[in-house]
Amino acid sequence: MVEASDRGNSAIVLLSGGQDSVTCLAWAKARFERVEVVSFDYEQRHWVELDAGERVAQIAGVSRTVVPVNFSQVGSAMNDASVPVALSGGLGGSLPTTFLPGRNAAFLSIACGLAASRGIWDVVTGVCQTDYSGYPDCREAFVRSMQKTMSLALDREVRIHTPLMDLTKAQTVLLMKDLGKLDWLKHSHTCYEGKRPACGKCSACVLRLRGFSEAGIPDLIEYEVVSSKDQPEF
Amino acid sequence: MVEASDRGNSAIVLLSGGQDSVTCLAWAKARFERVEVVSFDYEQRHWVELDAGERVAQIAGVSRTVVPVNFSQVGSAMNDASVPVALSGGLGGSLPTTFLPGRNAAFLSIACGLAASRGIWDVVTGVCQTDYSGYPDCREAFVRSMQKTMSLALDREVRIHTPLMDLTKAQTVLLMKDLGKLDWLKHSHTCYEGKRPACGKCSACVLRLRGFSEAGIPDLIEYEVVSSKDQPEF
Repeated sequence: MVEASDRGNSAIVLLSGGQDSVTCLAWAKARFERVEVVSFDYEQRHWVELDAGERVAQIAGVSRTVVPVNFSQVGSAMNDASVPVALSGGLGGSLPTTFLPGRNAAFLSIACGLAASRGIWDVVTGVCQTDYSGYPDCREAFVRSMQKTMSLALDREVRIHTPLMDLTKAQTVLLMKDLGKLDWLKHSHTCYEGKRPACGKCSACVLRLRGFSEAGIPDLIEYEVVSSKDQPEF
Repeated sequence: MVEASDRGNSAIVLLSGGQDSVTCLAWAKARFERVEVVSFDYEQRHWVELDAGERVAQIAGVSRTVVPVNFSQVGSAMNDASVPVALSGGLGGSLPTTFLPGRNAAFLSIACGLAASRGIWDVVTGVCQTDYSGYPDCREAFVRSMQKTMSLALDREVRIHTPLMDLTKAQTVLLMKDLGKLDWLKHSHTCYEGKRPACGKCSACVLRLRGFSEAGIPDLIEYEVVSSKDQPEF
């Protein structure tokens, strides 16, 4: 297996268009000489994040590949508007209904394959286990196992970077401030309901709002409703 | 993590429509009470295997899900007719040009996710390291790592069965004879060139022909050309 010394200085970032992946793109741009992004079109109910990803890729000046992957046969609130967004009930048990089984593994498999076909061996993803929202495929143990699996699949050492894994949402906002790219977040999309202005009520909106609030930085995207406890004072 | 005792008696088989996956379907039908199949449409040059998969699923009386996955951005002879089929040159090195980086990992990820969403925790794939054709993602070490990764991704014990892993092609033919389903192989497709009658010359055709020959059983599909050394005598 080829070791890290021969790996160049390029990376592919999984860019959904959400806050975390946009932050990862800024992180990768500061760390690697050459950066590309890959976005997945899986008929997500919040498909507007694809537009957000396109806009941010333009601003960042990086090449973007969109890969359609059809998950319509796998039931989840993530791709079926008739399934309510809820914190439990997914797979008939304690997982969130927004959990789309196999999604992150499939996306990382394709991203690593795409990277390999371009001679790139570093892949960056914004998964995070700190603000743990119940997705088993966002945990460190999963990503480390995936990295080993893809290194075996490609017969070459792959590195999957997770710069946000142990950060709170507030720390993620502050990381973006340090990277000097807070303005990119204005174009990111987070709301699970796919709303712009964002709904301000779904679990994704609430996490985002709290993160900005705790960081003491205003969130520049628009919201329909923001509950008073999540509204920062400036 | 939920253990095996609560796993039911159902399986999903990855059915490409080739000889190996058709054999796996027969194996699964003999072992599990309820069997479904999943096929992937990735614009493979030998797309006729999808028709073969449909036909075999009909004969076997199993439900079939077709999942489109777009690998067009990942260059390989497997999905780009302008790339010649060759035993080396893939990823600019010693891998076959038909190697599609990330393919098996993505397919297994989606198959496990689809299975999970239906309450199924057993997945069957026809990968085989004996007639090793240079694909790192057909090896035992990869599949075992993938099984662990998907169990972490789904927070539940997944089993990936590989009944052909250590069989020669001749033993695979004999397994099908033992299962009483040799006639299903008449509908399977193997040729990398996507030809029917099969080309008889590509590495996939040659492996298949040798397997039948060594097993002493006639291959009932038609070939354009069969070299004399691979032609069994009956």
